[in-house]
Amino acid sequence: MIIVLKNKTTEQEINELMSWLTQFKVTTNLVQGVHSNIIGLIGDTTQIDIEAVQAKECVEGVQRVQEPYKNANRKFHPDDTVIEVRGRTIGGGKTQVMAGPCSVETEEQIITTAIAVKQAGATMLRGGAFKPRTSPYSFQGLGKEGIDLLLKAREVTGLPIVTEIMDVSDIDLFADVDIVQVGARNMQNFTLLKALGRCDKPVLLKRGLSGTLQELLMSAEYIMSEGNQKVILCERGIRTFEPAMRNTLDLAAVPLLRQKTHLPVTVDPSHATGIVSLIEPCALGAVAVGADALEIEVHNDPKNAWSDGAQQLTPSKFAQTMEKIKALAEFMGKPVDNVG
Amino acid sequence: MIIVLKNKTTEQEINELMSWLTQFKVTTNLVQGVHSNIIGLIGDTTQIDIEAVQAKECVEGVQRVQEPYKNANRKFHPDDTVIEVRGRTIGGGKTQVMAGPCSVETEEQIITTAIAVKQAGATMLRGGAFKPRTSPYSFQGLGKEGIDLLLKAREVTGLPIVTEIMDVSDIDLFADVDIVQVGARNMQNFTLLKALGRCDKPVLLKRGLSGTLQELLMSAEYIMSEGNQKVILCERGIRTFEPAMRNTLDLAAVPLLRQKTHLPVTVDPSHATGIVSLIEPCALGAVAVGADALEIEVHNDPKNAWSDGAQQLTPSKFAQTMEKIKALAEFMGKPVDNVG
Amino acid sequence: MIIVLKNKTTEQEINELMSWLTQFKVTTNLVQGVHSNIIGLIGDTTQIDIEAVQAKECVEGVQRVQEPYKNANRKFHPDDTVIEVRGRTIGGGKTQVMAGPCSVETEEQIITTAIAVKQAGATMLRGGAFKPRTSPYSFQGLGKEGIDLLLKAREVTGLPIVTEIMDVSDIDLFADVDIVQVGARNMQNFTLLKALGRCDKPVLLKRGLSGTLQELLMSAEYIMSEGNQKVILCERGIRTFEPAMRNTLDLAAVPLLRQKTHLPVTVDPSHATGIVSLIEPCALGAVAVGADALEIEVHNDPKNAWSDGAQQLTPSKFAQTMEKIKALAEFMGKPVDNVG
Amino acid sequence: MIIVLKNKTTEQEINELMSWLTQFKVTTNLVQGVHSNIIGLIGDTTQIDIEAVQAKECVEGVQRVQEPYKNANRKFHPDDTVIEVRGRTIGGGKTQVMAGPCSVETEEQIITTAIAVKQAGATMLRGGAFKPRTSPYSFQGLGKEGIDLLLKAREVTGLPIVTEIMDVSDIDLFADVDIVQVGARNMQNFTLLKALGRCDKPVLLKRGLSGTLQELLMSAEYIMSEGNQKVILCERGIRTFEPAMRNTLDLAAVPLLRQKTHLPVTVDPSHATGIVSLIEPCALGAVAVGADALEIEVHNDPKNAWSDGAQQLTPSKFAQTMEKIKALAEFMGKPVDNVG
Repeated sequence: MIIVLKNKTTEQEINELMSWLTQFKVTTNLVQGVHSNIIGLIGDTTQIDIEAVQAKECVEGVQRVQEPYKNANRKFHPDDTVIEVRGRTIGGGKTQVMAGPCSVETEEQIITTAIAVKQAGATMLRGGAFKPRTSPYSFQGLGKEGIDLLLKAREVTGLPIVTEIMDVSDIDLFADVDIVQVGARNMQNFTLLKALGRCDKPVLLKRGLSGTLQELLMSAEYIMSEGNQKVILCERGIRTFEPAMRNTLDLAAVPLLRQKTHLPVTVDPSHATGIVSLIEPCALGAVAVGADALEIEVHNDPKNAWSDGAQQLTPSKFAQTMEKIKALAEFMGKPVDNVG
Repeated sequence: MIIVLKNKTTEQEINELMSWLTQFKVTTNLVQGVHSNIIGLIGDTTQIDIEAVQAKECVEGVQRVQEPYKNANRKFHPDDTVIEVRGRTIGGGKTQVMAGPCSVETEEQIITTAIAVKQAGATMLRGGAFKPRTSPYSFQGLGKEGIDLLLKAREVTGLPIVTEIMDVSDIDLFADVDIVQVGARNMQNFTLLKALGRCDKPVLLKRGLSGTLQELLMSAEYIMSEGNQKVILCERGIRTFEPAMRNTLDLAAVPLLRQKTHLPVTVDPSHATGIVSLIEPCALGAVAVGADALEIEVHNDPKNAWSDGAQQLTPSKFAQTMEKIKALAEFMGKPVDNVG
Repeated sequence: MIIVLKNKTTEQEINELMSWLTQFKVTTNLVQGVHSNIIGLIGDTTQIDIEAVQAKECVEGVQRVQEPYKNANRKFHPDDTVIEVRGRTIGGGKTQVMAGPCSVETEEQIITTAIAVKQAGATMLRGGAFKPRTSPYSFQGLGKEGIDLLLKAREVTGLPIVTEIMDVSDIDLFADVDIVQVGARNMQNFTLLKALGRCDKPVLLKRGLSGTLQELLMSAEYIMSEGNQKVILCERGIRTFEPAMRNTLDLAAVPLLRQKTHLPVTVDPSHATGIVSLIEPCALGAVAVGADALEIEVHNDPKNAWSDGAQQLTPSKFAQTMEKIKALAEFMGKPVDNVG
Repeated sequence: MIIVLKNKTTEQEINELMSWLTQFKVTTNLVQGVHSNIIGLIGDTTQIDIEAVQAKECVEGVQRVQEPYKNANRKFHPDDTVIEVRGRTIGGGKTQVMAGPCSVETEEQIITTAIAVKQAGATMLRGGAFKPRTSPYSFQGLGKEGIDLLLKAREVTGLPIVTEIMDVSDIDLFADVDIVQVGARNMQNFTLLKALGRCDKPVLLKRGLSGTLQELLMSAEYIMSEGNQKVILCERGIRTFEPAMRNTLDLAAVPLLRQKTHLPVTVDPSHATGIVSLIEPCALGAVAVGADALEIEVHNDPKNAWSDGAQQLTPSKFAQTMEKIKALAEFMGKPVDNVG
């Protein structure tokens, strides 16, 4: 951490600041120039609140040199984290494809879709039971019943299930779920993150609409600092000025995250674009930039879906897309998992 | 609502769509052109999920003409909502000023600050007990103890208290709080919004970092559709590309919101800018564009604050700023409330 | 400027870098820590290309402490720049109001509008002769003829004229224009900026749709470094994710710019919002945050305007707005100029 | 185009509007409902200025159904545009790779780099002679001399050259250049676009930092409407809130553009990310989403480059990257052109 002092800082102010900094057990180096003074801090600075430093009257600016996250930091954990889920591995050189409807609607719908995506080659089943919707007048999901239906679909197909939690108070309902998803709107629901940090269950953490990559990693750190190291990051598009697509898919984030952290990274082209015809090319793009997994919305009857109809693939379109994903993932040296 | 059909839509597809629309009890008008067909829907379309329409294969595009919110809509409630809080009125032609520290830290700190802001003319006391912090290693707030300290400060000063809730499970702790604040990160925590909708307590709803104004109003609608009509909106800066300030304060949102909705609108220049020297001019700007209230961070000793030090005013700076706010609010015809 | 070196930088790499830095005639201070090394540069660093430093293999990061602009920097020019235009002063404690149509259309239109805005209290006349339009099929402005009509309107009313230049090759046509405007899309048309820097004429430089405040000041620096110190900055809304308004008006930018630079700052609420009913409140907000001038679109017949009809005020609405602007500007201690 | 009328529009206002619309030779359909009226326009609406319609007092809202561009629209030109440049084809089922330094610096530098990129498999040579730099104190490019050096490099290697124009007045200097590049900052320099529209030379048009895809296509339309149909679009990252990379690379824009337009699309991962280690994965991502060409910065000695050092590849790193690009492009069915 580097602290730049204001032009006319007095000797006494500097001494006070230096003495205040001793509590953090870091080494301080003072560089005195004609026009400004700089303090360089060496050591573990994650405990230092950058705003607290900024608040000191003599401080012109502060900059972190080291990342403020530790558990999620590749520097301290060079090896890829590999998360095992019912025989599939996320982050271990295989590509996982999580497919399924936006919302769980009926038993027939989820079972039919689950069988179809499995047949096409999907390795996990996604489906929403608790649905965060912009309007209170839209379908809010089946809740507990939705989770029960997903468990049935798992029984039938053997596919592990991924589904979203919206509130800490529902956490017991997710006891049998394989991967608990934290949606974009909850990326900084810190109460929820801490509670999930005390579970022993993989968490798929989606990037918020305006979440920076560092904030995403700090949210992962919230989970990890409570004990749970099984965090999967998910790029699902960010909010920008561009109106042509639902969000702007930030595929460059994938290799950048993979350099900064050892956690696996997945991509959700369905929510990122919101446009059926863009899902296949973006899924392929995600594989090419190095994603460990994909999350794709598939519905047995999209035009009558209760939510997100415009961005869900039909089973047959998904099957075509899976063929291309499989071939490309193989080519990239990270084949789609085959637990068959 | 207007539905534009694709170029080669068949008679049968149109009929199917028209018949599907009958369930919503709206009047449909079909305009048939050479190259495209348009269906105009007249009536209450808030129940129609725009995505469900978009998902129909024959649909090229859909556009709402009417806003998707009803309770919050000024068209249906032309008169300003006036919310009474211990003798102060928000939205009733007076300006309220909520001032106090980012975080409640100690009894001495909150009492000292409360007395100081009251003396300067603040009409309510703000202070954080539950703190959403980007890093798990930063101070997370005193929790219940913080609320107890705020209640003491209210006892001493008579100032109503405003403090943030982070999770549904804490709702009982807020029973004696005057205004419950929903922070920017929770603007779309729908579980929390619904729960607050079932309380009889004013809710100060902050706009999310990437929340559109329509989404902010839809979040207000979540609260209102459950029964609680006492919602106060808050503009506190949005996230943009500009790095010079913490956020970009969207002051034009204030008059726009006041045209779209009958709910009162408050402005938080402290979080919006994050820079002490910008708080006074931005507070004055907020009064000039028509804000009903201001939320300003004041700390008895900012340079030793446990959070947000760089953006908190000292009591003496706040007193100077209040003088200008009082004069301008008076000039604008919406004087700062004086419950003395 | 602070240079943070990578973890395993060798003595030799450090020496090479230190010796490379000597060419810039700055003092260098090396802080050596256990895990990283820091070089602090003291002196005039504006000539050092931050990217060139970043490119050195041993460099982890670079941060400027001092702003990269000199001529525009208030630190080196503490007094406000005051620009005189035909007896009006911009930046000298008066408020200027530039009003007029988006486009100059006909002699009758511009003369009628000019007389009307003068009568209402405007102090300058704006009007577009060269129009940057998104579509090649939209009206592109009258060009030279438009400037001639503005000159006629000036003859009739005595109001100085402000009009936009789109290309260096047209520069001679602006010889009699009082203030040359550089539009948002040309904020970084560096060839144009340099050419205007060689003129002795006030330049009104608009912030680009995605221009940071520092970039705006660097563009001012382009003009000033060529000799012309008469630069007026203009905040006119930036592009964000919010669709409810044409742009997001960044009013906090006004006090921030006034702290960073001695140049006058104007605000254009018409382009910022694009909505007639928001222009008055936003103009008042601009006065309250400290703007030195306003630019407002007024058309004698907005509903038949050839461009931007939806955001132009009628003369009578403008007259009402001017009354409020005059009163507030007086109240703020920066009265609207009265050259009558 | 659909026009929604306000609630209380009178018969007379409707008639006036309908009659005003007749000038555009489109068919109008009026739908009258209880609460609102809608006019649907069928025919060529590109000539109708949406703002002019919006300005009518009785108009609540307007929406285009058809895109406002014609020449660039795939609907009217279903076949891919194929642009031939010295035996290479852009858009014709081959992948082109334009490589070379950010700036042309010296004869030795450009020749060495040109030979190196050719050897590695690049099919064109890029290099900046006129450089748009944020600071007036940074290197501004060699200008005409830079173009001469590029021509020499072409002589030596046979690689076609791509270089940026910054102003109309320089257009004659580009007579021998193979592809004229319009930089991001000039995407809406309409004077320049029109002038290039009157040349018979391929134009590589970069998306502006805050340019929407529709605006990019409208800028292409500016060139095309003047006659020149040889336009190549380039995605090079947009400006968002994310600070970790120079820009946010919008790879989903590639398939979307290819659906909307018949023009070829290229991707510049160097400017998009600004980080050497992200260029290879993003280049591969670009190939996977369907790009027709890549533009990559390569410098024979990046750490001493006069500009953009941090994002330029060394020749050896580029050679490794090219091997992967070639293999993937082949796999995707769009092999890197081999004119050997």
